[in-house]
Order: sequence, then C-alpha cells, then structure tokens
Amino acid sequence: MSVTVAIDCMGGDHGPSVTVPAALAFLRSHAAARIVLVGQPEVLGPALGKAATEFGERLRIHPASQVVGMDESPTIAMKNKKDSSMRVAINLVKAGEAQAAVSAGNTGALMAISRFVLKTLPGIDRPAIATVLPSKNERVYMLDLGANVDCTAEHLLQFGIMGAQLVAAVEHVERPRVGLLNIGEEEIKGNEVVREAFALLRASDLNFCGNVENIYDGSADVVVCDGFVGNVALKTTEGLVQMLTAFLRQEFSRGVFTKLMALAALPVLKSFKKRVDHRRYNGAALLGLRGVVVKSHGSADAYGFEHAIHRAAEAAANRLIERISDRMAAMAQGEAA
Amino acid sequence: MSVTVAIDCMGGDHGPSVTVPAALAFLRSHAAARIVLVGQPEVLGPALGKAATEFGERLRIHPASQVVGMDESPTIAMKNKKDSSMRVAINLVKAGEAQAAVSAGNTGALMAISRFVLKTLPGIDRPAIATVLPSKNERVYMLDLGANVDCTAEHLLQFGIMGAQLVAAVEHVERPRVGLLNIGEEEIKGNEVVREAFALLRASDLNFCGNVENIYDGSADVVVCDGFVGNVALKTTEGLVQMLTAFLRQEFSRGVFTKLMALAALPVLKSFKKRVDHRRYNGAALLGLRGVVVKSHGSADAYGFEHAIHRAAEAAANRLIERISDRMAAMAQGEAA
Repeated sequence: MSVTVAIDCMGGDHGPSVTVPAALAFLRSHAAARIVLVGQPEVLGPALGKAATEFGERLRIHPASQVVGMDESPTIAMKNKKDSSMRVAINLVKAGEAQAAVSAGNTGALMAISRFVLKTLPGIDRPAIATVLPSKNERVYMLDLGANVDCTAEHLLQFGIMGAQLVAAVEHVERPRVGLLNIGEEEIKGNEVVREAFALLRASDLNFCGNVENIYDGSADVVVCDGFVGNVALKTTEGLVQMLTAFLRQEFSRGVFTKLMALAALPVLKSFKKRVDHRRYNGAALLGLRGVVVKSHGSADAYGFEHAIHRAAEAAANRLIERISDRMAAMAQGEAA
Repeated sequence: MSVTVAIDCMGGDHGPSVTVPAALAFLRSHAAARIVLVGQPEVLGPALGKAATEFGERLRIHPASQVVGMDESPTIAMKNKKDSSMRVAINLVKAGEAQAAVSAGNTGALMAISRFVLKTLPGIDRPAIATVLPSKNERVYMLDLGANVDCTAEHLLQFGIMGAQLVAAVEHVERPRVGLLNIGEEEIKGNEVVREAFALLRASDLNFCGNVENIYDGSADVVVCDGFVGNVALKTTEGLVQMLTAFLRQEFSRGVFTKLMALAALPVLKSFKKRVDHRRYNGAALLGLRGVVVKSHGSADAYGFEHAIHRAAEAAANRLIERISDRMAAMAQGEAA
C-alpha cells in the first residue's frame, strides 16, 4: 500500500535543514511511499535543490506561508496561524491527501491543532502521546506523555487500548503485553486511580501483564501511566543518561593514560551508544485522533527525523486509526450487551 | 558529642553477616560513637567473635528473640512480634538509650513500628522517607519515597521543610535549595496539588528554587514529590542503570578484542562505578518522627550498611529531630500571628 506522509517542514529547532534531507532519505529507502513537504516554497525549493525532480510525483511541495514558533502559545498558534506549515500538514490528513503528518514543532500547538482539525475517535475522552524507549526486550512504548494530568482510571484503560494497537500496527506484535506503571511494595500499591485502573485493565480483553515497576526490564511492550508520571519517568531517564555520560567522559579524560583508553575503547563505546541512541527512538505518536500524527523531538537531526517519518508511515500503512476505532467500538458494544 | 546507634542486626537479606561487620567498621572509624547490636544473642555472639571485647563499653548486645521477615505484613509484625530486633531497636530510641536506629528490614514494618512507638512530631501529618542520590552537584535528597500516595499540597510543604533540615544536619548546608518535582512545559505545568504546593513552598521561608524537571542536574539539594512519583523516579533510575550496565557489559564481551579493551579500560570503569556506587548513597531517613530512624537497602553489603549507620549517627549528632520540630513550631507560630 502506498502511503503519503505530510511533513511540517518548518517546525523544530532546525527546520528545513533537517526535515528536507530526512524526507529525501526516507523516500530513498521506501520505494512506494510519497511525501508532501509543507512550508514556504521559497525556502523549500532551494533546500531541495536538484532532488526536486529525483522522485517524480512521489515528492511535492505544498505551500504554507506561516510558521508556528517553538515557544508559541497553542491558543495563539490555533487562532492566528491558519496557514502555518503545521496546520496545513494536519489539514492534508483531514482532507485525505495524506495518511499521516509528522512535525518537530511545539508539542502543545501540535496537539491543540490536531485535536481541533481531526477530532478525537468515538469513545476516546482525551488523546495521548506515546513514546518509544529502548528496553532489555528491544523497545517499550510508554504513554501518556501529553497534557493528561489528573487522569481517571477509564483514561488509563483507553491509553492501554491505544498503546496496544500502536504496537500491533508499528511493531507487528499481535497481542502486545500491556503493563500498568505502579510501585511495587504491598503496602503502597499505588494510589486510588491506579488501583481502579488495574481492575479495569484486568477485566479488559487486553493482554494485561499487571503492575510494572521497571520500565526497562522488558516485561511489557506497553507501559501505561498518567501524563505527569510519564513525563517524570522520561525526564528522569534523560537527566540520568546526561549525568552518566558526563561522568564517564570526565573519568576517561582524567589523564593521558585514560585518554588513550577512551580512544582504544571507542568502538565499544560507539556500539553501546548506538544501541541506546535516542534518535532511533524518535517519533512519539499522538493517539486517539481521527488521523495519524507523529511528533518528532524538536532538536532531532535528519537521522532522528527520518525515524519519526518511518514510524508515521508504518502506523498509517497498518491502519492504526481503524484498529483503535474498531477496538473502541467493540468495547462499547460489549458494555451495551 | 557521643552518639549511640541501635542496630537491627537481624533485618535485611543478609542479617548479621552484613550488619555486624558494618557496625564494627563504623566503630573503628568513629572513635566517640557507641553501638547497640540488637538481636538473638546466640547468633550475634559468634558473629562478633573476639571483636566482642575490642571496643569495651562502646559496643554491647541487646537481646531480642524475634525477627521480622522481609515479606511480613506490617500489621502482623506490629501485633505479633513485640520482641523483634526491629521493634527493640526502635524501643531503645524511644527510651533514650540510643539516639538513632538503623534497619535493613522490611520498609513497611519499619515505618509502622517507628510511627507506633515514636509517634510523629507536632505539625507533621505523615512521616516521609528521604533517599540520597548522586547528582552533578555531588548528591541530591529526594522525598517522599514512602507510603504517602495521594498527598496534599500541605504534605509536600512539610516534606520540603523536613528535607531541608535533613540536608542541613547531615550535609552541613545551611540553606539547602528545595525544588518541586514537576513537568516543565507551559501547558502542562503539573497537576492541581503540585500547583498548590508550588505556591505554599514559594510563600514559605525555605530556600525554594522552583520546579525541578531533572533530579540529576544539580539544581536542587532537596527534591520534593509525592510517594508515588518518587518511587517511579527511583525505580526508573534503578531500572535504567541495570539496563545500561548490562548493555555495556555485552558490548565489551562481544569478541576477544573488545574483551581486551574492557580489561584495559577497567580502572576507568571502576572509577566511574565508584562515583555512582549506590552503596555510598545507602541509608534512607524516616522523617517526621520523634527519633532518628534510617532504613538501609535490604540487599546492602557491609560497606553500604556502614554508610547507613554513618548517616544515622550524623543526623542524631546534628540534632535533626530538634531542627525539624523547631521549624514546625516556628511555622505554627507564624500562622497563628
């Protein structure tokens, strides 16, 4: 199946200098895919150069005159920038001209615009953001990372359903194991909402694997939590990796001998770094909408952004939206019966 | 000032084989300190061997016939084991025969017994557990890690006050910077309770440094959060470190050459490991009680357990309990005025 992905080319910290090369690299490795580059033609034309004709009708530019700033308020971006590259890319999904949109722009604006233009699926109270992380079992999906603080147990159940369908679509795992992020000790088994969510998840037809304490031990394919806790876990991970990397660098640069050691160990350290390279895990899915939208990290390079495009194309090709809406419909019918 | 520390010698995964050597090592490096070993004399006597006489009256055994199991319910431990080494160690603090107690036993039982025997300080609604972690700025204290899920903003303020006094007492930092664990993006600035806690902390006379997103960047000396979030951050940290260590080991053992590299890089890796060695950060303080109680990790070795004893002795010698109760009294007076 041929998938068309609309790219918000002006978003992110680097704009077209990252998004355009990433789109070209993606087209080279996905012979059937199509790309619509959305943004200011006077910027995108020169950025494309002679690649403009390389892909024939698989690649086109769609004009959008405005750009949403990285720190812009979502409300202002929605109201005053109806011709932003972000908004126009989402419009293309709504119109069926593209099956997915990818943006490295401001998360709040992307969520607000996506929700306004595409609307949520029946039965979904709040869209969620799902990220991918490395784990002992290759990778784990965690959601929510969005604005959903103060979640109810029903929201957590919906996150579980959406996350499972995402992993099924993108990773081709038929019955992904869904875990609930919780704290283990018997006497403090989580708060009220988490306890209720446990009961709902267990009663559902998901492949629920119970409480998960360690996101990284490979015990689950999908880990469900509220947006506050998810963000804390993600920021803790990023902060710890930064600190450990800085410490390791300092230890290796203490003296001439240790510097030589670092040089010698470079292939191993590189191979290690590649394994946990956050760029390979770039591309968070906005779930619960009537269309595929993927958010790239704002500071992603072309290699990272290409991974986000790939993830969006996979989700669209494997009918992510239909999968989620089918599950929600089946659940509603189950409840009515 | 001479401090006496009561040791629950039977607790933890290893019992006297860890707690007794740790106590002896502590006595050797703290010439003025005293230790009471609490547990079954028929076990402790042989474990001490000829060290029994080495320290004269600085070391004594106090008998306790029962042992609280690592998985035992706190309620059962409280009701049925009034002569457990854990309970008797806490009793010694209550009676003034020791100024602090250290246990590697079951956290829930230790908290329940401490709370029952010692009672909470005036103005403290719930005791909290504070742990130490490495950070870019040497170390950071995080609380709560206890059973306080579903916290109110007032609880978070109390955690901030207790954490600041702990750092003042143990690390000799006069005005520790207190941060509130939160998620940064403007549109999702935390949930209701965290927003209220921000206002309370800012209005207090603590050295409040605002929201903290990254525990490890050295921006705060104390990071305050509820017990659920704190446990998630801690478990995420432990899980990530385990995964990264396993990956690094795998990369270094891929072939003969990389194995040689590992051997060559060993001094650097060891020095790195020492820097983030969790044993040096062992010893979580139970705060808000009328006595100093420190919880060691259940699986700690003698080196780690000795750090926990040291932390307890420092807290007692520097009048932690008086400091907290003075602050709470001053705050109550401020409110009444």
